[in-house]
Amino acid sequence: MRVMVLGGDGYLGWPTAMHFAAGGHEVMVVDNYLRRTIARSTGSEPLFEAPNLEARADIFGTIRDTPIEVAIGDCSEMMFLDPLFARFLPDAVVHYAEQPSAPYSMRGFHEAQLTLRNNLGVTFNLIWAVLRHKPECHIVKLGTMGEYGTPNIDIEEGWIAVGHNGREDKFLFPRQAGSLYHTTKVLDTDLLWFYVRTHDLRVTDLMQGPVYGLSTWECEGNLRLLPNFHYDDIFGTVVNRFLVQAVAGVPLTVYGKGEQTRGYLNLKDTLQCVRLAAEKPASPGELRIFNQFTEQFTVNELAARVKRVSAALRLPVEIRSIPNPRKEKEEHYYNAKHSGLLELGLQPHFMTDDVLTQMIETIIPFKADIDSNKILPRVRWS
Amino acid sequence: MRVMVLGGDGYLGWPTAMHFAAGGHEVMVVDNYLRRTIARSTGSEPLFEAPNLEARADIFGTIRDTPIEVAIGDCSEMMFLDPLFARFLPDAVVHYAEQPSAPYSMRGFHEAQLTLRNNLGVTFNLIWAVLRHKPECHIVKLGTMGEYGTPNIDIEEGWIAVGHNGREDKFLFPRQAGSLYHTTKVLDTDLLWFYVRTHDLRVTDLMQGPVYGLSTWECEGNLRLLPNFHYDDIFGTVVNRFLVQAVAGVPLTVYGKGEQTRGYLNLKDTLQCVRLAAEKPASPGELRIFNQFTEQFTVNELAARVKRVSAALRLPVEIRSIPNPRKEKEEHYYNAKHSGLLELGLQPHFMTDDVLTQMIETIIPFKADIDSNKILPRVRWS
Repeated sequence: MRVMVLGGDGYLGWPTAMHFAAGGHEVMVVDNYLRRTIARSTGSEPLFEAPNLEARADIFGTIRDTPIEVAIGDCSEMMFLDPLFARFLPDAVVHYAEQPSAPYSMRGFHEAQLTLRNNLGVTFNLIWAVLRHKPECHIVKLGTMGEYGTPNIDIEEGWIAVGHNGREDKFLFPRQAGSLYHTTKVLDTDLLWFYVRTHDLRVTDLMQGPVYGLSTWECEGNLRLLPNFHYDDIFGTVVNRFLVQAVAGVPLTVYGKGEQTRGYLNLKDTLQCVRLAAEKPASPGELRIFNQFTEQFTVNELAARVKRVSAALRLPVEIRSIPNPRKEKEEHYYNAKHSGLLELGLQPHFMTDDVLTQMIETIIPFKADIDSNKILPRVRWS
Repeated sequence: MRVMVLGGDGYLGWPTAMHFAAGGHEVMVVDNYLRRTIARSTGSEPLFEAPNLEARADIFGTIRDTPIEVAIGDCSEMMFLDPLFARFLPDAVVHYAEQPSAPYSMRGFHEAQLTLRNNLGVTFNLIWAVLRHKPECHIVKLGTMGEYGTPNIDIEEGWIAVGHNGREDKFLFPRQAGSLYHTTKVLDTDLLWFYVRTHDLRVTDLMQGPVYGLSTWECEGNLRLLPNFHYDDIFGTVVNRFLVQAVAGVPLTVYGKGEQTRGYLNLKDTLQCVRLAAEKPASPGELRIFNQFTEQFTVNELAARVKRVSAALRLPVEIRSIPNPRKEKEEHYYNAKHSGLLELGLQPHFMTDDVLTQMIETIIPFKADIDSNKILPRVRWS
C-alpha cells in the first residue's frame, strides 16, 4: 500500500510513518514544520530536539533498509499538495497536518486565524486532490474526542439515532468543542461528511483522546528516532506533562477541580489504530468514525497514579490545583463508547505502573533540560 | 441604533439597508461587489442592472433625506473590516457577506475554495472585530434552512433535546446540507456557537428559506432602488426563476420529481424578520436561532401556482421536468417549525395570486432583456 502521511514531522506523524514503513508499505511524509515554528515562537521547544525529517528518514533507512520519502511544504497551498499527490498517488492518506494546540488556538486573533485557515485549508485541499486524481484513495483523518465536548448523554462512535415526535433519523453525534482548535476539527468533520455523501469519498475519522508515551516499536534503542516530546502548556498533553513535572520535582498542576474525565491512549495504540484503519478502509460513500482511546480517567486519577509511581522511584511529588485557564466543565458525566477499533483488532497497551515507570526512566536523563517555566498555563480562554 | 449591513449590495442587503434607514436607524452598508463579479464571470447578470451602492445611497438619500453610509471593501480581509468596525461601532451587524450560490459553490475547486474562504473568513473576522471593539454588539447572521437538509424528523428552531440511554441533553439541531455553499453556513454556525459559549457573544442565526419578490416598501415607485433580480441558474431562486420563465414563454423547469419541499418567504418578510431580530437582540452568551420562512410548498405546487396565475394573465405556461442537476431527495418528509419570528411580531406576506401577479407585471417590461440561456442548469453536483 502507498501511504502518504501529512504532518509527518509531528508527535504522531513520524512514529506513524516508521510504523507503516516497517510494515512493508511505501511511505511519503509531508510537513512544513509548522509545529516547530510555533514551538520556537512561543518558547515551547520539546524536551529534546528531533532531527529534521530528511535526517530521520536517513537514519531509519540506514537501520531498516527501508526508504521513507520526504516532501517539505505547506499542504494548505494547493499548488504544493496537488502535484505531490498526483505524483505519489497514495492508496491511503493519513491526515495529521493540523495546528494541534488548543491553548495556541485561544491565544489571540492571529493564532486563531492561523489554526482555522491551516486546518480547514489542508482538509479542503486534500479532499480536492483525492477527487481530482484518485477518488478511491482512503482518507484517514485524525479527529479528536474533544469534538464531542462533555455531553450529558453517552458518547457513541460518531453517529446517533435520534427519535423525535414519533419519527427517527440517524445523524452525526452532536459536537461542541472546548477550544477553537477542537472546533476546527468539528468543521473538518462537517466538510468531509459533505464530500463523502455527494462525491462518494472513503473517509475514516479517528476521534482520538489525549495520547501519552514517547517510544514506539520502530525507535527502540535509537534516541534520534523518538518523536518530539512536549511537556509545555502549548503542546504537552496532560500525562506527558505530569511525568516531566514529577521528574523536575515541581508540583503536578491540576486545572480546577480535576474531575475532568477523558479517554486516553498509548502512542503505540495510535499507530495500531491508524494502521488497522488504513489496512481495512472505509467503503466509497462511507464516513466511518471510531472513538480512539483505551481507558477513561479523571485528571485527579492521573495525578494520583503519577504520584504513586514516582514515589516508588523515590521522586517525591506534590499535587496542586491551580485556577483553570480553560472554559470547561470540571465535573461532568462522561461515558464514551470505543468498541470499533477493538473489533478491528486493536490490542491495547494500558497505562500500567510499568509503562509510567519506563516513561519516567526515559525522561530522567533529560532532567537538566527541563524548563519549568514552560509548564504553567500561559494562555487563558477569556 | 447603529446598524452595519455586510453584503449590503445584495438581493437582501440593499433592501435591508433601506428598511433600517427608513426606520430611523443609522446605517452603514459594506460590500466588495463579489456577487456582481461572479455574475459577470459566469454570464449570470440580473434582469436589470442596479446602480452601484454609492449611487443607490445617493438616490435614497435624496428621496428620504436619510443618509446611508457606504464602504466598499472585502470583509474577509481583517485589515479592511477591523478599522471600519472600530470607527462605526455598530450596535448590530447584519451579516449577509457570503457567496450565496449553491450551484456556483459546486462548479469546481476554485469556486468551492472561494466560497469556503470568503464565507468562513468573513464570519471569523466579524467575530473578532466584535470581540476586540464592542463585545455587546449583536450579530444577526443569515443562515439557511438548507443547513438542516431534509431529515426524517420534524425540524425544530435550531436546537433539539436528545434523549439517549435514559439521559438527556440539548444540542444544535443536526445539520447536513446539500451543497458546499449550504455547508459553509453549517460551519459558520459551529464557529459562532463556539465563540458565543466561550466569549459570551450575542448572536441571532436566521435560518432562511428561499426568498421571492422584487419590491419592498422603500423602493416603491423607483426602479433604481429595486434589489438586483436574478433569474439564472446560479443566483436565481426558484420562484423568481419560474416567474421569469412564464414571462419569457419558456417551460418552467422542475428538477426531477419536483416533490422537494421547502419553506418560502416574501422579501418583505426577510426585512421584517431581520429588523425584529435586531430591535430585540439575543442576550450575551445566547445563540438564538429562528427558522425564517412563512409557508411550505413543493416545487410542483409552486409550478402549478405560477401556471395558474400566468394563465389568468394570458401567458400560456408549460411545466417540464428535467434531470435533477443536484444530489438531493426528490421525495421526503418535511415539517419545519417556524413560530419564533411570529412570536417576535412578524406579519407574514403570503404568496397570494395577487403577489405573483404583481411580480409578473413588474417583470413584463423587461421581457426583451430575458436571456433564456441563463435559466437551464449549467452546474451538476457530480
